[in-house]
Amino acid sequence: AVYYTKRRASDDKEMVEAKDGKSSSRAIDYDRTLDWNSNEALLKIFLDSAASLRRQFLHYIRDEYHFPEEYISRLDRLFTYTCIGGKMNRGMVVVQTTRELCKVRSIPLSDTLKRQSLVLGWCIEILQACFLVADDIMDKSVTRRGQPCWYRHESVQLDAINDTLILESFLYFLLKLHFSDTKNYVTFLELYREVALKTQLGQMLDLLSQPQGRKGPEVLHKFSRDGYIRIIVYKTAFYSFYIPFASAMILCGIDSDECLKVSLDISVAIGTKFQIQDDYLDCFGDPLHIGKVGTDIADHKCTWLLVTALKLVNREQLLLLETSYGKEDQSEQDNIKQLYRDLKIPKLYASQEQESYDSILKMITDKSHLVPTCVFRPMLDKIHNRTK
Amino acid sequence: AVYYTKRRASDDKEMVEAKDGKSSSRAIDYDRTLDWNSNEALLKIFLDSAASLRRQFLHYIRDEYHFPEEYISRLDRLFTYTCIGGKMNRGMVVVQTTRELCKVRSIPLSDTLKRQSLVLGWCIEILQACFLVADDIMDKSVTRRGQPCWYRHESVQLDAINDTLILESFLYFLLKLHFSDTKNYVTFLELYREVALKTQLGQMLDLLSQPQGRKGPEVLHKFSRDGYIRIIVYKTAFYSFYIPFASAMILCGIDSDECLKVSLDISVAIGTKFQIQDDYLDCFGDPLHIGKVGTDIADHKCTWLLVTALKLVNREQLLLLETSYGKEDQSEQDNIKQLYRDLKIPKLYASQEQESYDSILKMITDKSHLVPTCVFRPMLDKIHNRTK
Repeated sequence: AVYYTKRRASDDKEMVEAKDGKSSSRAIDYDRTLDWNSNEALLKIFLDSAASLRRQFLHYIRDEYHFPEEYISRLDRLFTYTCIGGKMNRGMVVVQTTRELCKVRSIPLSDTLKRQSLVLGWCIEILQACFLVADDIMDKSVTRRGQPCWYRHESVQLDAINDTLILESFLYFLLKLHFSDTKNYVTFLELYREVALKTQLGQMLDLLSQPQGRKGPEVLHKFSRDGYIRIIVYKTAFYSFYIPFASAMILCGIDSDECLKVSLDISVAIGTKFQIQDDYLDCFGDPLHIGKVGTDIADHKCTWLLVTALKLVNREQLLLLETSYGKEDQSEQDNIKQLYRDLKIPKLYASQEQESYDSILKMITDKSHLVPTCVFRPMLDKIHNRTK
Repeated sequence: AVYYTKRRASDDKEMVEAKDGKSSSRAIDYDRTLDWNSNEALLKIFLDSAASLRRQFLHYIRDEYHFPEEYISRLDRLFTYTCIGGKMNRGMVVVQTTRELCKVRSIPLSDTLKRQSLVLGWCIEILQACFLVADDIMDKSVTRRGQPCWYRHESVQLDAINDTLILESFLYFLLKLHFSDTKNYVTFLELYREVALKTQLGQMLDLLSQPQGRKGPEVLHKFSRDGYIRIIVYKTAFYSFYIPFASAMILCGIDSDECLKVSLDISVAIGTKFQIQDDYLDCFGDPLHIGKVGTDIADHKCTWLLVTALKLVNREQLLLLETSYGKEDQSEQDNIKQLYRDLKIPKLYASQEQESYDSILKMITDKSHLVPTCVFRPMLDKIHNRTK
């Protein structure tokens, strides 16, 4: 009994019968008096729900695998440290979109739907935690969400590599516990696998665009707009936008290939707009307002500003890029910023910002007979013209 | 069309229709004149089949994601370097056991069954590659299978962390392509997820038993027989023995909870015997015969020899363990070996070897009405009294 488990969840009850007769709960604790329609209250519900999901996994390992308590608390620390503390934008999209879709489609927002949307929201946050823990080691990052990166803890270090795999397993445990008895189980499994693969390939593209963090003209000349778009779409658009939208849609029965294709196209467009904003704000945003000082120029990053500049420069300006891009020295960084201004890139950005808004809005409107506009409009309006 | 794919495999034909009308092959190339009943020929078939599976994944990324050729060949190198070159024991167990089960159960060994057993065999090899790439980084290993570890390549380094995730995705791609239209799809998905989780937890136990490679009395006194067994069962028994046996059994319809439980218990027993042999041979085996010099004592490893010794030592002998275990110095290592001899551990090993054989054989025989003996007997006889 120690090593073997085969448990199937049952959707119509919150308590699940385990093979040994003990019952295990799928119920999620949160303050039931809070108003699901208030986004502020919903944020609290979402944050509070994490503890139940963590407990479900830890109970499973404690009860079925009989691990001593010190290992259970090690896992607890891993999950708490790496999954909590972010803005939870991605997870919140699932619960908010599910709520809005229920309204426009006149679907009752049942306890089961609420629970399932919370679970899917956290699955995305856990998937992100898995990528962030791994990326931070590869990028040798120092802080994440205002704290030392997980791998930088004295007692963790490269053990964090195994932890990324455990985080991924946590996600699939939750999908099994909460969806294995629903018709959408395989759909969700394959959605998560496909998005995970695409994100991993995006990370590979990003790593190879600057092999081992190399800088200089040789690397610079391989940067291109096509390459840039491919990296940002694969590395961020699918897991940041597509999977939250698609999760809520599938949950509410909007799951035809045609509808998911609409969601994918719009997610790619929103994700692209979002990353271009990120690049612009890193260079021209207000550090006090954003809360961090941009490092893209010093890091020799392939950004929208850079690939746009590369298409506009004359020979002399190209020489400046070749010699000054990627340098730590502040005056060299200022030279690059001045070059961007000389090339009127801020004005081009303003156009890109408006044009992308118009074109995404048109996509949303044109396809509103397939996917209700309430899926994408809140996100589009939220990010348009953002200054942080 | 660039970012979206939803493809379902169809079992009754080797060619699969993709959404864009192009057909994609699930067929596996190998020399059809070779005799499937000869284990030597089967090893060649198994090895040859890897190229087709690799090609299926790379074609998918090329055709559906439109990645430039340099990235496709980077992935090709990753798969070839990390998945090929091992002894392929685990993968071969799937194809051999499937063949033997077909015989005793009078199931025709169809082309589909052959293909599926090859796929499952490689899925296990890929799962192992994923773990080995990650473990080598964490353990700071130098060589693997007689070559530099993947992460030690100048152009790879910590990018290997992302590669472990890509390897895992490769496995689930193959499961989807070859099983998504079969009734066993979810069973296999959950089997792989459960074994992956258990192996990750085993790796965590192993890492925490010697935090950051620390050595000395403080660590030594936490080693115990229970802790040792827990580590080896979780870290190696499930993926080395259970998943190959279970894959072949499920493929041949021996998939009841009761039968899988039998397989699990016997796998745990065989895995334990196997790891105890590994520990013994590392210390007392013939380095010329084995092909490597043992380093467990110098590495301060928690081995069967050590946890057995810890239960037998007097105060003076314990002091020797505390001062000499984990030291690089050859004379100190020799002192430990002499201590093992003084404690008659080689004789205890001989008893353990015979007793484990007898007890596993009894388990196999007692449960032969549930699981045919041909699943476990070849493995038990192969490893019993092994000297390398």
